[in-house]
Amino acid sequence: MNVLGICGSLRRQSRNKGLLRYAVANAPADMTVEVADLSAMPFYNADITERPAAVEALFAQMAAADALLLVCPEYNYSMAPALKNALDWASREPDNRLLAGKACAIMGAGGGMGTSRAQYHLRQSCVFLDLHPLNKPEVFANAFSDSFDADGNLVDKRIQDLIVAQLTALQAHAARFKG
Amino acid sequence: MNVLGICGSLRRQSRNKGLLRYAVANAPADMTVEVADLSAMPFYNADITERPAAVEALFAQMAAADALLLVCPEYNYSMAPALKNALDWASREPDNRLLAGKACAIMGAGGGMGTSRAQYHLRQSCVFLDLHPLNKPEVFANAFSDSFDADGNLVDKRIQDLIVAQLTALQAHAARFKG
Amino acid sequence: MNVLGICGSLRRQSRNKGLLRYAVANAPADMTVEVADLSAMPFYNADITERPAAVEALFAQMAAADALLLVCPEYNYSMAPALKNALDWASREPDNRLLAGKACAIMGAGGGMGTSRAQYHLRQSCVFLDLHPLNKPEVFANAFSDSFDADGNLVDKRIQDLIVAQLTALQAHAARFKG
Amino acid sequence: MNVLGICGSLRRQSRNKGLLRYAVANAPADMTVEVADLSAMPFYNADITERPAAVEALFAQMAAADALLLVCPEYNYSMAPALKNALDWASREPDNRLLAGKACAIMGAGGGMGTSRAQYHLRQSCVFLDLHPLNKPEVFANAFSDSFDADGNLVDKRIQDLIVAQLTALQAHAARFKG
Repeated sequence: MNVLGICGSLRRQSRNKGLLRYAVANAPADMTVEVADLSAMPFYNADITERPAAVEALFAQMAAADALLLVCPEYNYSMAPALKNALDWASREPDNRLLAGKACAIMGAGGGMGTSRAQYHLRQSCVFLDLHPLNKPEVFANAFSDSFDADGNLVDKRIQDLIVAQLTALQAHAARFKG
Repeated sequence: MNVLGICGSLRRQSRNKGLLRYAVANAPADMTVEVADLSAMPFYNADITERPAAVEALFAQMAAADALLLVCPEYNYSMAPALKNALDWASREPDNRLLAGKACAIMGAGGGMGTSRAQYHLRQSCVFLDLHPLNKPEVFANAFSDSFDADGNLVDKRIQDLIVAQLTALQAHAARFKG
Repeated sequence: MNVLGICGSLRRQSRNKGLLRYAVANAPADMTVEVADLSAMPFYNADITERPAAVEALFAQMAAADALLLVCPEYNYSMAPALKNALDWASREPDNRLLAGKACAIMGAGGGMGTSRAQYHLRQSCVFLDLHPLNKPEVFANAFSDSFDADGNLVDKRIQDLIVAQLTALQAHAARFKG
Repeated sequence: MNVLGICGSLRRQSRNKGLLRYAVANAPADMTVEVADLSAMPFYNADITERPAAVEALFAQMAAADALLLVCPEYNYSMAPALKNALDWASREPDNRLLAGKACAIMGAGGGMGTSRAQYHLRQSCVFLDLHPLNKPEVFANAFSDSFDADGNLVDKRIQDLIVAQLTALQAHAARFKG
C-alpha cells in the first residue's frame, strides 16, 4: 500500500513534519509512506491556466497513492493554508480523480488540544472531497511539550505508538475502499 | 469609521470581489471601506524572518482599520487559503495588536449555501483571533445564479440591500468595541 | 440489509418525518428501513440506573440494524436534542456495541440550507461514535417550500430521487463495513 | 448584573454543576449568578401548546438575566441535549426576546479537551440565537483529573482563577450590549 503524506507546515523544524518523518520511518510492512513537497505550491487561483511544476509533482504523487496521510497543523483554530491549498488544487481535477473515494488518516501537533479544532474542519472538507477519514485512533500531539527534540523529531513513546496504530488501522480502512 | 475589506479569492472576475466592490461603493455615510491586496502574500512560514512588502502593506491597513469586512469564499466546505493566510500572518504580531478586540462582518458568494460552511469555520477562528463577528445579517450569495454579471459585478437587489444592511449593523456593532 | 431510521423531530406533521416515511416506502430491494420511536425517550442522565422501556426498545432496534439512517432537523444551527440524545444513550453501551463501525446516511429538512449546519455537527459526533457516514449524496431539503404537502409528506421529485440515490449508495457503503 | 447559569448536565454529582457552583459562590462584586433548573424540561416539540411549568420558570429567569453563563458538557463531540434544548425552547419566543443581543460566557468540564468540541458547536448556535459569547478566557476543565472532589466540587486553583477571570471579563463584555 502506497500512502502519500502531506504536511501543512512549511518551516524546517516543524513538529508536524516530525510526526510525518516518524510515520515514514515506522510504517507497517507492506506500506510505504511518501512525502509531498508543498514548498513551491502557489495559492490556487482559477486564472492560472498553465499548471506549475509543483502542482504537477503533487498530482503525480496523489494519483499513485492508495491513501493519504494528512498532517494537519492548527493556526488560529483552523487549518494551515498550505495543507488546505494542496487539497483545493487537487479537487479541481476532472471527476475529482485524484481524491474521490480514497481513505485517509489525520494527525497533528499543536497546542494543548493537539490541533483537534483544525482536524474537525479538515474532516468537513473530506465530505466534499469524498475522502474517507479514519475515525480512530485520532492523533493529537502537544507540540510544546518535550514530545519533540530540538530538531522537531518525535521522541514521545505514547505518540510514536499511536502513529503506528493509526497507520495499521489505515491499512485496514483503505482496503475497504479499493476496487 | 474605517473598514478594511479582505477578500479570499485571487482571481480577477471573482464574484466575492464583486461583493466587496459593492460594499466599497455603497458604504454608509461616515464609513469608508478600503481593500486589501492579497495577490503577493506568501504562505505564512515561521522561517521567513524578513517581512515581505505585501505583508507590511496589509499590516499597515489593518492597523488603521476600526473594523474588518471578511469576504469569505468557500473551497471544499471550508475557507479559502488566501483569506485564512492573511489572518494567520496578522495574528503573529505582538499582543495580537492588529486584530484583538476588533469588530468584523463576514460575507461570501459561492454555491447554493453561499459559503456558509466556510463562514462558520471563519467564525471559529475569530474566537482565537479575538475578533467580534456580527451575528446578523449574515450574507450568503449564490455565485452561480444571475446575481452577478459576466464581470463579477453584483446585480441582485436583495443581496445589494443585504450588504448595505450588514455594513450599517457593523457600524453599530463596531462602536461597542471602541475605546 | 436492515436499516434503522431515527428522526430527531417529535412533532406529528414534521417534514423530517416525511423524509423518513418516503425512505421507508421507497427503499431499494433487499433493504428494509425500520423507524425508531423517540417520543418516550428521557434525557440521558448517568443517575438513571434502571433502563427505561423506550431505551430498551431503541437498543434492540439498533442491535438488529446493519446501518443507520439519521434524519437530522436543525434547531438554532445545530442538532435537534432528541436525535443527539438517542445517540448519546446508545454510546454508553459496553464497547459501543450498538454503533461501532456501522455505516450511516444523513438527511434533513429545514430552512434554506436544508439543515446542513446541523448535519456537519452530527458528522463530528460520528467520529467519536465510530459511525461511518456516507459522503455523497448529501440530502438537504427545504422544509418551507412546496416540497411537502400539508401533512408533511414529501412531494418533490428531485428530493425523492435524491433519497433513493442516497439509500442505494448507503447499501454499497454499508457493505464495506460488514464482517 | 444578573447572570443566569444554565448547566447541560442533569446528574447530581456532575463536574459541570461543580463549575457552576464555583461561579455562583465566587462571582465578582455587583454580579449575582442564579442557576436554572433543567430537570423537568421536556424536549421541545411544536405540538406542545400549553407551556410546562419548568419552561415558564426558565423563561422568567432568562427574561430577568442581563447575561448568560452556559455550562457546556460534551457528549460524543457535541453539546449535551439538555443545554441545547433549553436554548431551543427559549428561541421560539416572539422576536427572540429572551436571548437577542445578550452577552454570554461558556465553560465546561469533560475529557482531555475540556468540552472544546461541544463549545464550538454551541458558539455556532449563538450566531442564530443572537447571543454574544465572550472570546477569552475560554474555560476548559478536565473532569477526569483531581480537579474535582468526589462530590463534584471544583478544587483546582488554576480553573478556579480562570472562572473568576471569565466572570470579570463577562461583566465588561455584557456592558457593551446593554441599552
